[in-house]
Amino acid sequence: MNISKNQLKLITSLSQKKYRQKHKLFIAEGVKVVNELLNSSFEVATIFCTDDFDCTISEEKIIPISETDLKKISNLKTPNKVIGIFKIPEEKQLKNNGLIIALDAINDPGNLGTIIRLCDWFGVTQLICSKDTVDCYNAKVVQASMGSLTRISIHYLELNTYLSETNLPTFIADMNGENVYKTNLPKEGILIMGNEANGISDEIKKLVSNKISIPRFGERQETESLNVATATAILLSEFSRFKV
Amino acid sequence: MNISKNQLKLITSLSQKKYRQKHKLFIAEGVKVVNELLNSSFEVATIFCTDDFDCTISEEKIIPISETDLKKISNLKTPNKVIGIFKIPEEKQLKNNGLIIALDAINDPGNLGTIIRLCDWFGVTQLICSKDTVDCYNAKVVQASMGSLTRISIHYLELNTYLSETNLPTFIADMNGENVYKTNLPKEGILIMGNEANGISDEIKKLVSNKISIPRFGERQETESLNVATATAILLSEFSRFKV
Repeated sequence: MNISKNQLKLITSLSQKKYRQKHKLFIAEGVKVVNELLNSSFEVATIFCTDDFDCTISEEKIIPISETDLKKISNLKTPNKVIGIFKIPEEKQLKNNGLIIALDAINDPGNLGTIIRLCDWFGVTQLICSKDTVDCYNAKVVQASMGSLTRISIHYLELNTYLSETNLPTFIADMNGENVYKTNLPKEGILIMGNEANGISDEIKKLVSNKISIPRFGERQETESLNVATATAILLSEFSRFKV
Repeated sequence: MNISKNQLKLITSLSQKKYRQKHKLFIAEGVKVVNELLNSSFEVATIFCTDDFDCTISEEKIIPISETDLKKISNLKTPNKVIGIFKIPEEKQLKNNGLIIALDAINDPGNLGTIIRLCDWFGVTQLICSKDTVDCYNAKVVQASMGSLTRISIHYLELNTYLSETNLPTFIADMNGENVYKTNLPKEGILIMGNEANGISDEIKKLVSNKISIPRFGERQETESLNVATATAILLSEFSRFKV
């Protein structure tokens, strides 16, 4: 194995947020995601890859490994040629204009990754996360965001404080809100999406100026809601569709 | 352990499609999903549950188990009181009216589950799956569909044959298609969504009458697409929004 014990220990430790924050490093896997990161402003620390991975970074940052070793250190079911260690960039300054998405305690890494990808698609450049939202450098978030992570400014902050100080109009999805298909949505504002199980917290609800709802067309008896990522998709589409 | 060896063998075997089809049985887990199935037209075979699970089915179908045993047989990280074995219902007759969703080789169980949930929300009662789409009685699909499985008619068939014989207008999402926000969408039709990696197959593309696109607002350089479940959410929203 070309990987030293210390490197192996580092890779393993980076599955935990506290070590990612300590080392200011995170892990990305697979050809697509690693290449997107290499072609971005993100700085690479080390690349572990099999012979058939092509990249143009300086050689001292590349550690060639066998397929078998890759399997040992990978978190993926089907490892794909490369695992990269990248530096966590400094958080950029939050720009308070345009449409901003704010997340209240999103837990699921797949949901956060999908929402980052949606922001990228719909041209939302500022994403705010409450402090108890899953870490965006979690390996599963990095994977699910498919490189979109490099194009979105993500800010972890006290959501209550931020929302109580903003002058922008604020929106939440709420079953008793105004039908989103009949609402005139502004170009600027903050759309807040809530926790998978509990929705938006009561403290946040008190700070919000607008409630919008996605009408339900099916004949359900249950109080089921849409998944947070699909609801975000529909609402971002509604905020954007009038621009075309 | 109150679970017999044969029952344990059966539960384990039901993680494979061939055994689900042989026994015409599938597994559901957790209070919410199991309760939705118990309150539906689906027929229960056996319920394995801890003492604190309340249900009103006949006692001979209930096998009480300990928390520890539940953990042993569960597929979930955090098992929740109950695992149920249910009978796979006979496939209903396909109704060729209204909006129909057709899936071309969807692989990911989470995506299929989310799409079933979206169909339920938007009142789409007919879901067609190509024969190589993941099985809707896969435990992860059952889990992700959150009980919506009981309200949607799902039909596995030769998608090529079906599409070549239908009189309904057919739609696919395609980057070069008409802007969906400017398209007059009909009340009846078939919306076809493609495989996660490869999109719609070439044979299907030839059979399709309408191409629609979801405009991209972000400034990406990559040829990235939306996740199939979020794209389905946006398109179902567009097909539905004029109804209100």
